[in-house]
Amino acid sequence: METLIQPKVLKGFRDFLPQDEILRAGLIEKLTNTYRAYGFVPIDTPVLEYTEILLRKSNGETEKQVFRFEDNGGRDVAMRFDLTVPFARFTAEHREELYFPFKRYHIAKVWRGEKPQAGRYREFVQCDFDTVGSDSASADFEILSLMKAALSSIGVDDITIHVNHRGIFNRFLTKTGCSDKSEDILRIVDKIAKVGEQEVKDELTEVTGSTSSAEQILDYIKPCDTFAQTLDKIEKLAGGPAEDSKRMRDIYAMMVAAEIDKAYVLDPSITRGLDYYTGVVYETFLNKLPSIGSVCSGGRYDNLAGLYMKDKVPGVGSSIGLDRLIAGLSQLGLATQKGSYLDAEIYNTSADLSIYYQKVAGLLRKAGVAVEVFPDSVKMSKQYAVTDKKNIPWGILISAEEAQNGTLTLKNLSTREQFQGITAEEAAQKILGK
Amino acid sequence: METLIQPKVLKGFRDFLPQDEILRAGLIEKLTNTYRAYGFVPIDTPVLEYTEILLRKSNGETEKQVFRFEDNGGRDVAMRFDLTVPFARFTAEHREELYFPFKRYHIAKVWRGEKPQAGRYREFVQCDFDTVGSDSASADFEILSLMKAALSSIGVDDITIHVNHRGIFNRFLTKTGCSDKSEDILRIVDKIAKVGEQEVKDELTEVTGSTSSAEQILDYIKPCDTFAQTLDKIEKLAGGPAEDSKRMRDIYAMMVAAEIDKAYVLDPSITRGLDYYTGVVYETFLNKLPSIGSVCSGGRYDNLAGLYMKDKVPGVGSSIGLDRLIAGLSQLGLATQKGSYLDAEIYNTSADLSIYYQKVAGLLRKAGVAVEVFPDSVKMSKQYAVTDKKNIPWGILISAEEAQNGTLTLKNLSTREQFQGITAEEAAQKILGK
Repeated sequence: METLIQPKVLKGFRDFLPQDEILRAGLIEKLTNTYRAYGFVPIDTPVLEYTEILLRKSNGETEKQVFRFEDNGGRDVAMRFDLTVPFARFTAEHREELYFPFKRYHIAKVWRGEKPQAGRYREFVQCDFDTVGSDSASADFEILSLMKAALSSIGVDDITIHVNHRGIFNRFLTKTGCSDKSEDILRIVDKIAKVGEQEVKDELTEVTGSTSSAEQILDYIKPCDTFAQTLDKIEKLAGGPAEDSKRMRDIYAMMVAAEIDKAYVLDPSITRGLDYYTGVVYETFLNKLPSIGSVCSGGRYDNLAGLYMKDKVPGVGSSIGLDRLIAGLSQLGLATQKGSYLDAEIYNTSADLSIYYQKVAGLLRKAGVAVEVFPDSVKMSKQYAVTDKKNIPWGILISAEEAQNGTLTLKNLSTREQFQGITAEEAAQKILGK
Repeated sequence: METLIQPKVLKGFRDFLPQDEILRAGLIEKLTNTYRAYGFVPIDTPVLEYTEILLRKSNGETEKQVFRFEDNGGRDVAMRFDLTVPFARFTAEHREELYFPFKRYHIAKVWRGEKPQAGRYREFVQCDFDTVGSDSASADFEILSLMKAALSSIGVDDITIHVNHRGIFNRFLTKTGCSDKSEDILRIVDKIAKVGEQEVKDELTEVTGSTSSAEQILDYIKPCDTFAQTLDKIEKLAGGPAEDSKRMRDIYAMMVAAEIDKAYVLDPSITRGLDYYTGVVYETFLNKLPSIGSVCSGGRYDNLAGLYMKDKVPGVGSSIGLDRLIAGLSQLGLATQKGSYLDAEIYNTSADLSIYYQKVAGLLRKAGVAVEVFPDSVKMSKQYAVTDKKNIPWGILISAEEAQNGTLTLKNLSTREQFQGITAEEAAQKILGK
């Protein structure tokens, strides 16, 4: 006899058991429907790509984390670590077949060999949506509006979306004479929610070499009471009205017109670190659980596919971190789990009736009932244990006499109410609540 | 300036553009709903596994094709090449958390470094459904019934499902004194649809060393006019009634009771080659395009997870080869493609009205309309070109005066019928056909 192999998944990887996968699949379906209702269309790209394509623009950290190898044909290949780089390659490769503005969503797994820790996995799902080929307030607003609608579609309404504009911030930094240190400053400012004001002030003083500059920056990033007041303030500090602040005003006016402005705050401390964003940027926090971090973030970028084509393709997009969001929902008790999609179970009380059970199952399915036959005629306690795990609301029990008459007994498994001697069609009506 | 990188996918890999991905996603959604209605639940497993787990039981061919490498932690890992081996590992690893019988579906990508050729890709989707922990005619029948229902749910009704039982065939081979060559014989017989009767006869003669044995086998694998007649014949040739032929009779009786028997033929030449099947086996052919091969196949196996656990877990399952099926549907003109999920487009005739457009979009979405605003105020011909590509049925045009009055003009983009000066709510009713 062969030795048994220990069945186990790799470190940082996970199986999804039915309850967890039903939850995840349900969230993905709702997000998908919302993305579609806003005009976004799906695409798909390969999990494996040429390493050169995936890593050309990346920093050393990404390079260390990527799953990279030589395939059997000697090609240097890697598993995608996000959905943005493949989208850039896709846009360049298919630019003649596509139309612009092009709005795509892509919900798929990505892989990073990060140090596994609570809530961090080496395989996880990203839910991206981007509009490329339009540099307009409409496109910016649509993404921001969809962020709220998508989260709302999965029952996540108690959120705040923090919005900022990198252009206004850059103007301000130029005016205060700090533009040469803008990368450092953006990185420091972005940490304020995590490390606190004093730490940020100290670091800013060190980087700018001036307490007064640090104080000016700290003043700039402090929001006022309302979106409009904050916008007035930062516009003034940045030197007055310009394209960037006009864009922000237009976006805000759209929020007001669509009556969704309450969910957004203008937060000048949001910078998305060192990323490639050039216009609006945003992060989304659960009001009851801000500590888990942003569950939906993104921004506007100048040029999506510059590595692969000459034409500039500006874009704006956002991404929901599904695994983090599920962790948050679980903590908040908002992650409802179910064990199956079944309406009813036909219990197996006699092997002799197997053929009749299947006949009834066929009739019920024709009427729109999701139903299965318990395949083996084992003890009822065992059958009930399985249907319990599957959270099935209705049971069907059939005696030999009922089989003869073409009827059955329907049982509500929570109230224990029974309907004896009814037909499959009558049972279907009760089950479907008609 | 940096040199551009040529944007291209790896050989044997594919991008899916929106029309193709909308088609594929639609098929997957319908299959998923049907699997669920039969009581199957989803699971997920990692794309990467320990190579030892994936390859222990495989033959040399699989080993050559698998994408395998050493990860940054020095582990020997591989990308899954099917969904069955990971399911076996999953069942063993989680046997305490699961219940049996356990019915799972898994629709996901797998990877094989096969020589790319027409219809063969290195990355493709499998749609598996299996019941493990029950060795019963009910479980066998349910899989067979679901195969038909699943294909029917995606509009594929003109099919024939060829069924056989490996046990009856094995009894027959023992009786004719050929059981020591059964592996070779099964492999030869399985090719009959491809290579023809004469070639099979020649090979059988060579393997068995006897023309008479070859003729007996050829006689055995020839179906009669009806399922029942064929079953009578092979049962007799195998030495009379036994468990295996009784199982086949029970399954057939269930098909008749559920009134779906017309779709199935008992075809004694179906063996599924050298696979690990021990009971019923089956393959599904498109009646109008049998040449593309089976689009849904499977069978019963004795022991799913024998490599990983001591308890035997018998099972029965099937798998739809989605890529082959899509290729078949396209050839038959049954693959309907659409460009988006949108009901309506709000055309952008004036940048000044951007805010009002978004207000209208919000109202329409609230009423259940899938709608987008064209983000840029470009030439109408360009806007119409994009909405044409997206196959959007309704257009909305808004003049400055209408914006003032809170109204709009709705246009049916195929009939060109127009409704002027109506409200967003009235437009929603017309679009949704209320």
